[in-house]
Amino acid sequence: MRYKLTLEYDGTSYAGWQIQSDRMTVQQALEEAIEKLCGERCATITAGRTDAGVHALGQVAHADLPREYEPYKVMQGLNFHLLEAGHTGIAIVNAEAVPDTFNARFSATRRYYRYRMIARRSRLAIDYNRAWLVVEDMDIAAMQEAANHLLGHHDFTSFRDSECQAKSPMRTLESLTITQEGANIFVDTHSRSFLHHQVRIMVGTLAQIGKGRWKPSDMVDILSAKNRASAGPTAVPEGLYLVKVDY
Amino acid sequence: MRYKLTLEYDGTSYAGWQIQSDRMTVQQALEEAIEKLCGERCATITAGRTDAGVHALGQVAHADLPREYEPYKVMQGLNFHLLEAGHTGIAIVNAEAVPDTFNARFSATRRYYRYRMIARRSRLAIDYNRAWLVVEDMDIAAMQEAANHLLGHHDFTSFRDSECQAKSPMRTLESLTITQEGANIFVDTHSRSFLHHQVRIMVGTLAQIGKGRWKPSDMVDILSAKNRASAGPTAVPEGLYLVKVDY
Repeated sequence: MRYKLTLEYDGTSYAGWQIQSDRMTVQQALEEAIEKLCGERCATITAGRTDAGVHALGQVAHADLPREYEPYKVMQGLNFHLLEAGHTGIAIVNAEAVPDTFNARFSATRRYYRYRMIARRSRLAIDYNRAWLVVEDMDIAAMQEAANHLLGHHDFTSFRDSECQAKSPMRTLESLTITQEGANIFVDTHSRSFLHHQVRIMVGTLAQIGKGRWKPSDMVDILSAKNRASAGPTAVPEGLYLVKVDY
Repeated sequence: MRYKLTLEYDGTSYAGWQIQSDRMTVQQALEEAIEKLCGERCATITAGRTDAGVHALGQVAHADLPREYEPYKVMQGLNFHLLEAGHTGIAIVNAEAVPDTFNARFSATRRYYRYRMIARRSRLAIDYNRAWLVVEDMDIAAMQEAANHLLGHHDFTSFRDSECQAKSPMRTLESLTITQEGANIFVDTHSRSFLHHQVRIMVGTLAQIGKGRWKPSDMVDILSAKNRASAGPTAVPEGLYLVKVDY
């Protein structure tokens, strides 16, 4: 029986989603909880393999469990075993039975990310590891003007990490919006899919423009350069949240 | 030279504000950072001695430093020493020089608290230790109706912890407002001062009414009983935030 699991997690204590030989990851914590629930190990497939330090409000994974369970009991059971294993930063927020044709990775039609910056002069305390501290004033209008140049179907080679394994650098960016709420600056974006580090490189580049180091129109040249070195630095992982996934 | 310090902290890792013999507290972390900055120990006085697990966005304390410093350097210096000592959850968000007549405790004219509940069926992950999880549906209108009975000048004995050291149980409650934003339920309140655990007992009582166990009009009887046993349980500390202090 295939189950769709929606997860919230604080990525601070985890080496990202994907299982590694030597460090705890979200996927490993989840698969160990599944093993406790079902008595056997079941592989999980996810919508997005988030990096170390990246958070999720609505990550999605699927797993084929050996028996049929009430979905609510899958959620409650996995949450019990996660908590018992000390994974206070991971919670299953929804579980549902889905047909075998559902695939958390390949059936996804849209992924939503939010990047959170906090603009203030003092260190972060409550939001330590939950946002990117930017100490300079940011020009939100300039950032939005620059962001608009990235919308649509483009070769995003300039915004792709050198380790990206995608066959094509072509992506269609559907939305990229910058908003300010008090000291918080949010960059919200969604697309069918993103290249490796694409959101964080877009944010790092927008920050250069927000700080006035580059002009909004420079974004056109950065995109057309098709060269990672032309874009800004990769923004720190702790500001990034995988918000939800559409199917 | 007297300095007014505004602090933000995540109370999770601290046994509250006040110095204790055997456990780390926010006051001790602050006074150790001051000692590193000035070379000598300086006592601090605070607007509100928060309990273990309670957070602050704008706690205020004052200290008399042995020399005159630029206020910005006090903030930066204390933040440096806090971070170096591993206190990632405490930040000085503002420092200013004040006259010797300023007293963080006795000059305060109004204290603002926010209590955060999250109403959902699954465990908290991102907000673990940052809110109170309430799994039942809450009737916000009933909570507000009940809250309105507490406004004004009353004997708050029913909402006072047995260890409260205040001479008088009389307080004037200036504001008590319940709002909902998605799964978040916020209880915001301000007054010149509060009794020990008053906010958390008011919230614990409002939650009983929100869940439908008691009626809004029961709040009148609870208040007039002048008996702690008539009110609801003390809400958990991790939902409470000291937001700011007026002078």
